[in-house]
Amino acid sequence: MSRRLDVPERILLGPGPSNVDPRVLKAMSTPLVGHLDPKFLEIMDETMELLRFVFQTKNRLTIPISGTGSAGMETCLVNLIEPGDEVAVCVNGLFGERMADMASRCGGIVRRVEAEWGRIIEPRQVEEVLQSASPKLVAIVHAETSTGVLQPLKEISKLVHDSGALFLVDAVTSLGGCEVKVDELKIDACYSATQKCLSCPPGLSPVTVSEKAMDAIRGRKSKVRSWYLDLSLIEKYWSKDRVYHHTAPISMVYALHESLRIIAEEGLKKRFERHESNAEFLAESMASLGIKFWAQEGYRAPMINAVSIPEGIEDTRVRRLLLSEHNIEIGGGLGELAGKIWRIGLMGYSSQRKNVVLLSRALKEILRRAK
Amino acid sequence: MSRRLDVPERILLGPGPSNVDPRVLKAMSTPLVGHLDPKFLEIMDETMELLRFVFQTKNRLTIPISGTGSAGMETCLVNLIEPGDEVAVCVNGLFGERMADMASRCGGIVRRVEAEWGRIIEPRQVEEVLQSASPKLVAIVHAETSTGVLQPLKEISKLVHDSGALFLVDAVTSLGGCEVKVDELKIDACYSATQKCLSCPPGLSPVTVSEKAMDAIRGRKSKVRSWYLDLSLIEKYWSKDRVYHHTAPISMVYALHESLRIIAEEGLKKRFERHESNAEFLAESMASLGIKFWAQEGYRAPMINAVSIPEGIEDTRVRRLLLSEHNIEIGGGLGELAGKIWRIGLMGYSSQRKNVVLLSRALKEILRRAK
Repeated sequence: MSRRLDVPERILLGPGPSNVDPRVLKAMSTPLVGHLDPKFLEIMDETMELLRFVFQTKNRLTIPISGTGSAGMETCLVNLIEPGDEVAVCVNGLFGERMADMASRCGGIVRRVEAEWGRIIEPRQVEEVLQSASPKLVAIVHAETSTGVLQPLKEISKLVHDSGALFLVDAVTSLGGCEVKVDELKIDACYSATQKCLSCPPGLSPVTVSEKAMDAIRGRKSKVRSWYLDLSLIEKYWSKDRVYHHTAPISMVYALHESLRIIAEEGLKKRFERHESNAEFLAESMASLGIKFWAQEGYRAPMINAVSIPEGIEDTRVRRLLLSEHNIEIGGGLGELAGKIWRIGLMGYSSQRKNVVLLSRALKEILRRAK
Repeated sequence: MSRRLDVPERILLGPGPSNVDPRVLKAMSTPLVGHLDPKFLEIMDETMELLRFVFQTKNRLTIPISGTGSAGMETCLVNLIEPGDEVAVCVNGLFGERMADMASRCGGIVRRVEAEWGRIIEPRQVEEVLQSASPKLVAIVHAETSTGVLQPLKEISKLVHDSGALFLVDAVTSLGGCEVKVDELKIDACYSATQKCLSCPPGLSPVTVSEKAMDAIRGRKSKVRSWYLDLSLIEKYWSKDRVYHHTAPISMVYALHESLRIIAEEGLKKRFERHESNAEFLAESMASLGIKFWAQEGYRAPMINAVSIPEGIEDTRVRRLLLSEHNIEIGGGLGELAGKIWRIGLMGYSSQRKNVVLLSRALKEILRRAK
């Protein structure tokens, strides 16, 4: 019926998961303690402290949600939106679309702020929606994993706050790979995922929420539509009260704790520079193969590089050969971009110069045969 | 800011998590492959097949939800309930309460079928609610983790099906520790958790859904209120289509795969007998210490044993000493049972004769000093 686990050693250069430091794999195999064990409570406290460091925030409620990045997205939306609330959602890729879908499932009245996939949302677009509507919340994606675009946030944050709305940022792909200054940018709610630049296995979604946003949650007229993701219940477990809500995914918290320690040891500045320089090296290497970058120039996310598939080249065949002959995974395009772009992730532990060398060499060989 | 992970070796005899077989811990540290990697798709298929074996079902949609047991509970309720639907929820413990809370958050009109905590729900109570109301769904907990009661399901299932309603069963604590015959009992939706009798770390919730229930989901008039838990989207990833929904918690699936293989190797019959005989041995051992079982006689769940705390004994002090001096975790009472009962779990890998010996010996010593 089933065989012993025996998986090939992949170099993960797709849109996530990224490769995981052996130290993190080792942490995963640490024997379990209970979710209310004094030792685990210590680990929870340290994990919150480390998450605050990576999010660059003092927010008390800075915790891993027990689900993947999309669970973090849903946590922020379902807690902040009450049925009938107006919500402005910026949509310039798949994950903006996902936020819009979720926001409407939460009962929100969604005002879409749209840009072509591959281009940023301009501040004047947000200004317009704030003039024509009264959103309680403005939501935007920092690094759009589907397009490779890195969205500037500073001007938009100011516009949102001047209007009195809450500012929600998707940092699934950016956190740990470039600056996500939650406090300085006055972000009210921000979520991420473990399997991108934090280089921890998928399964948790770090979330941080400002006091202003928590006040909005505590002042709700209706119960949060999700019990599992209800932050007013979850915060009682992740605080001095330690009130049981659901059993924490203990091994995943071990892994996150270790991956965050590795980030603290490297230091944020050095880590971001590493992501930058490996992305630059990738750009040079792709240029030498005649492969062009696809996302809007000047706004490219260093950890997720969207490149145009050269004309006449069959997307899936190339990716299949990369995987089967070279054990290298890269990502294809999503939705309307399927067959048009490849997405090359250089995230966390995967962001290594040697990985760029191996990918370029393998691609060169495969493309030569494909012509 | 933080220290290297260094956790004590606990014997986990609480309400979950249970101890994990070293083979499962090893599986957790297997390097990652992508969530669309052909190798991972194989592992997904095998995991579904193994889950069908443990649930004793042929249901196609038999998958691990990417969250803990409560996420599985919410998955079943949020998919099966549309706003305005009548739902009968059996409440005789904390987890029945939780289902009632969730069902109302899903927009359901909840009809409560109540019994005292520690007693089973009688079939005639379900009969009554089916006569006085027209619930679309009847929900019940199989092994109530908060009280140690094992609920008979056969008669109730027949009543529910005769009425045309759907039958939802919480098998969080029972699955893998006693019979949960999904097909034979005509259960339409059933969820469990990995950290109880499956003896895998917490973080996934196995769920199985009948075709009748899937038809109800596909025929909904409104979108499922949760995007993350929307089974009509999730089933496209866990099928031949392999449509990306969210990134699967890969390492957790590795662990579940291995823990299910261990169950298949042991065999269900032998595994259930082991749980029975260790529970009997515990009952004898507790009797010799003058400690009485608390749950209704004849309906005691072998994997979660609720016992009365002897008079004059301070609950938390005893549990603290068990943990600090003997590295043994047992559970306290929840809600109204706090301070009145202990909950001794003998689940999966933790259900070992030697653990009963060690616990009895340690309790004897502590109780002697406490008097």
